[in-house]
Amino acid sequence: MSNSYSDDSLALHTDLYQINMTESYWEDNIHNKKAVFEVYFRKLPFGNGYAVFAGLERIIQYLENFAFSESDIAYLRDELGYDDDFLTYLKALKFTGNVYSVIEGEMVFGNEPIIRIEAPLAEAQLIETAILNIVNYQTLIATKAARIKQVAGEDTVMEFGTRRAQEMDAAIWGTRAAYIGGFDATSNVRAGKLFNIPVSGTHAHSFIQAYKDEYIAFHKYARRHKDCVFLVDTYDTLKSGVPNAIKVANELGDKINFIGIRLDSGDLAYLSKAARKMLDDAGYHHAKIVASNDLDEETIMNLKSQGAKIDTWGIGTKLITAFDQPALGAVYKLVSIEDEDGQMIDTIKISGNPEKVSTPGLKKVYRIINRLNNKSEGDYITLHDEYPENEDKIKMFHPVHTFVSKFVTNFEAKELHHKIFENGNLVYDTPAISKMQTYTMENLHLLWDEYKRALHPEDYPVDLSQACWENKMKNIEEVQQKVAEMIAGSNK
Amino acid sequence: MSNSYSDDSLALHTDLYQINMTESYWEDNIHNKKAVFEVYFRKLPFGNGYAVFAGLERIIQYLENFAFSESDIAYLRDELGYDDDFLTYLKALKFTGNVYSVIEGEMVFGNEPIIRIEAPLAEAQLIETAILNIVNYQTLIATKAARIKQVAGEDTVMEFGTRRAQEMDAAIWGTRAAYIGGFDATSNVRAGKLFNIPVSGTHAHSFIQAYKDEYIAFHKYARRHKDCVFLVDTYDTLKSGVPNAIKVANELGDKINFIGIRLDSGDLAYLSKAARKMLDDAGYHHAKIVASNDLDEETIMNLKSQGAKIDTWGIGTKLITAFDQPALGAVYKLVSIEDEDGQMIDTIKISGNPEKVSTPGLKKVYRIINRLNNKSEGDYITLHDEYPENEDKIKMFHPVHTFVSKFVTNFEAKELHHKIFENGNLVYDTPAISKMQTYTMENLHLLWDEYKRALHPEDYPVDLSQACWENKMKNIEEVQQKVAEMIAGSNK
Repeated sequence: MSNSYSDDSLALHTDLYQINMTESYWEDNIHNKKAVFEVYFRKLPFGNGYAVFAGLERIIQYLENFAFSESDIAYLRDELGYDDDFLTYLKALKFTGNVYSVIEGEMVFGNEPIIRIEAPLAEAQLIETAILNIVNYQTLIATKAARIKQVAGEDTVMEFGTRRAQEMDAAIWGTRAAYIGGFDATSNVRAGKLFNIPVSGTHAHSFIQAYKDEYIAFHKYARRHKDCVFLVDTYDTLKSGVPNAIKVANELGDKINFIGIRLDSGDLAYLSKAARKMLDDAGYHHAKIVASNDLDEETIMNLKSQGAKIDTWGIGTKLITAFDQPALGAVYKLVSIEDEDGQMIDTIKISGNPEKVSTPGLKKVYRIINRLNNKSEGDYITLHDEYPENEDKIKMFHPVHTFVSKFVTNFEAKELHHKIFENGNLVYDTPAISKMQTYTMENLHLLWDEYKRALHPEDYPVDLSQACWENKMKNIEEVQQKVAEMIAGSNK
Repeated sequence: MSNSYSDDSLALHTDLYQINMTESYWEDNIHNKKAVFEVYFRKLPFGNGYAVFAGLERIIQYLENFAFSESDIAYLRDELGYDDDFLTYLKALKFTGNVYSVIEGEMVFGNEPIIRIEAPLAEAQLIETAILNIVNYQTLIATKAARIKQVAGEDTVMEFGTRRAQEMDAAIWGTRAAYIGGFDATSNVRAGKLFNIPVSGTHAHSFIQAYKDEYIAFHKYARRHKDCVFLVDTYDTLKSGVPNAIKVANELGDKINFIGIRLDSGDLAYLSKAARKMLDDAGYHHAKIVASNDLDEETIMNLKSQGAKIDTWGIGTKLITAFDQPALGAVYKLVSIEDEDGQMIDTIKISGNPEKVSTPGLKKVYRIINRLNNKSEGDYITLHDEYPENEDKIKMFHPVHTFVSKFVTNFEAKELHHKIFENGNLVYDTPAISKMQTYTMENLHLLWDEYKRALHPEDYPVDLSQACWENKMKNIEEVQQKVAEMIAGSNK
């Protein structure tokens, strides 16, 4: 490993092509052209009806500290052979753009701009990879967590996945995202410290093994840890674990606060019901049952439907890796760029797949909330100079199947983008993380239950304004014309 | 976010229960009892026939720097309420144990100890979570990479997944693991810098969009980047992209080194064959075709079987997240602990699932290599005081289906564990990463093809020595006896 490791610069946390493109832009002197990129994903993960945005705090840190370090420059020069003139430019680079973003805990949907970056072309290009790396993972996990929390209802849900996370950043940023998505606590102490998340944990099987006697081990544990949860499945849950837990609780009486027991293997429905009865029979009606072991929302739903008596769910692997879909596909697309005359010109990316055609121009996203029932009618994407908040009536229509449409009146049009950076300066106060979690929960109340069903939810409308839709059609036509000319030209 | 973030201590990168157990051990004054834990996984990922170990370098860093920082202690005291007496103990803690491990690039299999930690009980417990977090992810990705490389054969394979990785550590440590597993290069510049991995990249679609003219954009790119690969699918691969690439190559002649083209969408089999013909017809027989777009080993195999003319494969999401199985389940089990008299006593974890019963005692792992053909006969797990390297003949038998057995003669017994730490001091020189990759490739040559098939490979034998097997049976019997007594006791 090179000595440069001590240097924690993230400027090189990017794909090499971003630096190559920057070099060409710089050589061609168009690196400071104003460019606008938008971050969005096309498809909601897990077949879920909504996603929960997370990652902004990490993006803020990244952009505030964006700078090539001495060792970055040395590496680019000595190992990759970039010339000094270009490196001199890179060395002075800071992020000087504007950033608009939805905030953490916001519900987001496919094909709507989550973040808009307005910056000199080169800067906007260099930061693409890291921003996607952050948004894709954290939004994925916040969404998975919200999905699990929906199914768990009022039960407590705890994140226990560090040992199975995809390296250390995933463990800590993932559990932070899970907290935003509605989880109550984490087992990761570092995440608790860094992000002010409640931490939770008792003891492991190895603790029982170390004493070689479950009864003695419970006593030893309770001696120092007055609020105690006993792990009861090291030898035999119902014949040894639960009886020993009750025996120790009886013996210690009010010297301890017997919170409950934890099950980590076996049939959790059967064992929890049997254990519940034993605890109740012993008078421990308030003792909780914590369960873990490869749980996810589907298993929780099944266990609940069988009447499992579980109060607290510990979720590991399936949450922290988003096991059933471990990547979100957010992209970063150029939607507008300054031309030779300093005018902003919309850009579009055409594709053979209609759903992959981007929507050109600077855009805003509104959530259209019906004032009569305080439920959302859908999201409404406008061009940057439209103000639906001043309208009495708007027409919402499906951007592909345009005949699917409705008129909405008596609505609140809530703009979802907040200004985060202005000319490279941070202008946004990050709220406390508990506020983000509250915001997620408030947001979910805006959704009809049909959009929140875990399996096959109804599609939530994400519609374009008339002007935005017409602008897209115009751009498609223009590009198709240009491509035809280009093809004709290259075949000459 | 708390101010403590600037502090990069990883000592709290652990589950809370490890700290709670440590506190109880310390209070009970058994925290310095010598304990032996082993790291192993039960099941190979992806249905693959082998795994490739990675993560040791990160574990070495972690253990060398293991210490609770001022802010860690403050957090434990002020936020979690631990007492000062215990915190004084934690504050002085360093890792003082021995570590034996297989080295990076080693082939490993289910149910064999990959790492053995011999340390004071409290230390061994505190480091569990981070070690598993590292091993599980890096080994998973090195294995996925080796699997993809097997299918790609002599073709070049490049890691392009940063934007879809599960946060930043996964991006860099994952691409390092991919390199160990046989990948040729990464797009992540930071990983290139930190780990001395070759980096690779050209330009994106946004580069073409910024110029709004593919032909001009290729010229602009080639002006600064003499070794050029042109991305040809922004508008129309065969009608515009490839013809423009050839035109620019023709015009610039030997002013550039026209390396080839990159395809990033569409039917890669069809497009690569058509593009190959166009390049050949234009005299560019040496121009390479790079392909990317949601590739994995299965897609590569399918494309190759259809005669796709692809020289270089760029693999993103499916590699860096190990998409089809995003977690490896390595565990960390207590196998031996000092008793009151200072004697080491074996421990075992019993389970209702026979395959989850641990193998007690300090163990070594040997690879039994047939001297006649230089192929491996299987792995052979012995107790720590056995020396099969001194034997002429060994009996290898299946640890569950014991009738499946064979005698092996004329073998080399290669011990897989290396001593890494001795009394907390690093005694191992980490080799250059290129050496690790070479080691992976050499290792794979030891395996018969039957074990390397991507789909339904033959099971590679991982056998216990007679003494190791008998010790396990003895322990199972003893524990069953004890549990029966315990159950009888708790039912009194």
